[in-house]
Amino acid sequence: MTESDELRPMRWHAGALELLDQRALPQRNSYVRCTDAAEVAAAIRSMVVRGAPAIGITAAYGVVLAARACYAEKGERWGACLTQDLEMLRQARPTAVNLAWAIERMAQLAQRLGPGDPEPALLDQALAMHESDVTANRDLGGHGAELIQAGSAVLTHCNAGALATGGYGTALGVIRSAWQQGRLQRVYADETRPWLQGARLTAWELLRDDIPVTLLAEGAAAWLMRSGSLQWVIVGADRIAANGDVANKIGTYALAVAARSHGIGFMVAAPTSTIDLAAASGQDIPIEHRDATEVLCFADQMVAAPGADAWNPVFDVTPAELVDAIVTERGVLRNPDRGSMHALMRQEQSHG
Amino acid sequence: MTESDELRPMRWHAGALELLDQRALPQRNSYVRCTDAAEVAAAIRSMVVRGAPAIGITAAYGVVLAARACYAEKGERWGACLTQDLEMLRQARPTAVNLAWAIERMAQLAQRLGPGDPEPALLDQALAMHESDVTANRDLGGHGAELIQAGSAVLTHCNAGALATGGYGTALGVIRSAWQQGRLQRVYADETRPWLQGARLTAWELLRDDIPVTLLAEGAAAWLMRSGSLQWVIVGADRIAANGDVANKIGTYALAVAARSHGIGFMVAAPTSTIDLAAASGQDIPIEHRDATEVLCFADQMVAAPGADAWNPVFDVTPAELVDAIVTERGVLRNPDRGSMHALMRQEQSHG
Repeated sequence: MTESDELRPMRWHAGALELLDQRALPQRNSYVRCTDAAEVAAAIRSMVVRGAPAIGITAAYGVVLAARACYAEKGERWGACLTQDLEMLRQARPTAVNLAWAIERMAQLAQRLGPGDPEPALLDQALAMHESDVTANRDLGGHGAELIQAGSAVLTHCNAGALATGGYGTALGVIRSAWQQGRLQRVYADETRPWLQGARLTAWELLRDDIPVTLLAEGAAAWLMRSGSLQWVIVGADRIAANGDVANKIGTYALAVAARSHGIGFMVAAPTSTIDLAAASGQDIPIEHRDATEVLCFADQMVAAPGADAWNPVFDVTPAELVDAIVTERGVLRNPDRGSMHALMRQEQSHG
Repeated sequence: MTESDELRPMRWHAGALELLDQRALPQRNSYVRCTDAAEVAAAIRSMVVRGAPAIGITAAYGVVLAARACYAEKGERWGACLTQDLEMLRQARPTAVNLAWAIERMAQLAQRLGPGDPEPALLDQALAMHESDVTANRDLGGHGAELIQAGSAVLTHCNAGALATGGYGTALGVIRSAWQQGRLQRVYADETRPWLQGARLTAWELLRDDIPVTLLAEGAAAWLMRSGSLQWVIVGADRIAANGDVANKIGTYALAVAARSHGIGFMVAAPTSTIDLAAASGQDIPIEHRDATEVLCFADQMVAAPGADAWNPVFDVTPAELVDAIVTERGVLRNPDRGSMHALMRQEQSHG
């Protein structure tokens, strides 16, 4: 696959941020063009772009657009103006830590800049963060693939792919690497209600790379495990706490419980930018709840009986004791706990 | 609620069987009229009517229509003619044992009849089986409700309600009884992919009785359990084996695994007509798989990425050791096993 074929959910083009509209996939391949920070925040809130690393990178580009507007309006006093936009971007969605992480890195650079036009330096950093995320995913994909024995079948949940990151993907990065190495006999993907990221995005993304995929309803996953034909569950993460607890798409915890009860491996693939040492455990991770209509409707059509309510948490937390391996760009952490998580974060990244 | 308000998914009317079209609910309240056995078998196959007890009763009425046609065509030699239609009805769907059970009871009666018009006697029995199912559900609903402490929250899966039975429901019979007794603080219902029986049917049916219901995606159920705010999972059954293994809607097994790991009760509510002593264990129960398009499409529109495959088992088997109670019209069986199941089936039914 050539560089230009490589799937990326966002691109900086002609002085603006273009986001592949993930709400329209797989039926329509269209881009939303953002020229200011408010448009970027709205795109994150409305899930034009989703996935923890992807919304981090998107927000970094949003900071570039915010700085441009502040410099145009306030000249050399752009710095104070920027603060409001940073906060708006940071508030766009609560659970993924990559969003706050990316904004913090951009803010730190902004504070070091002189009074002149901040856009070139901030854009350079946003582009570098984007490339660095793709590199991290290729690295962690390789590390994760090594855990998978030839002939294995794996199950993934939601979309932790190129679409959820700068490119290449986390859980799907592992799956891409393992597939290229001929280790995978079969890839299963939960359809992932209510937003159907599995059916719409993961299937589309894998088939685009000629990796065959079998979808299933979440309710069928434990039964698949009981059949004995599954070796690994591989998921991404929206935030990993200091003790190894993992916040990820709702339904992940159920898979972890079932995987453990069937002796099936449970692997979390995420760059270290997803790890939040400030969250001591999963209890410190805010869990976003979205509108009940996401459950009450299916493909934009009301399906539930009128008058029904719905409970719609977007994420859940899988306790570290159910996680067999956390795979980052720095390598594989087996049976994560507070000690090994802190040790991991003290390591300098070794580019492998 | 008056008798005429009571929800029933099938009715004998003006010499034909009328089935509430469950494919169209909750948007449309329409009936499919069946005047011969082939139409009844087609309605069962295409899920105009679904739910193990409901398809049993429907098939019993189908035998009445079959006998009428055979008598019209063959006169006193109607008996041999009937055999083919019985087999067609028996093959309509494989997993629910109530279908075979009901046809067997109708066949036994047919064999005892003289050469004259068999319709009146067969219709009497079908109507009696229908009423007897409703009575059984009221009885088991009362038995199950006694297990539920005041202030409890319960979760049900799929639709094991009036719509799935002759009326009143099994799991929803327990929930109706417990609600009437003021024991329930909250009723949760899985939306139940791919057919959305929870969102479409269970929510509609409970709200019709003014019982508030909160829907959730199956993936969220384990996370709800972890929150500590759930006391019982209550489901129906399509077939219960002699050792207490329970075949029910796909997703049931995942709930049982999660319930056990959170110390939450797992209750199966079903009339004894659902128990199949000829199946030694769940391994003897045939599991229906339906077309992948049920997962890939919605409302005849493709939702999944083109080229994706799907695995679509309709049922799964929950091993008896994960079942805390099987509730039938004869009472409550705790921690079912081969011995207690056989003892239950030897009991004469005591009308309570």
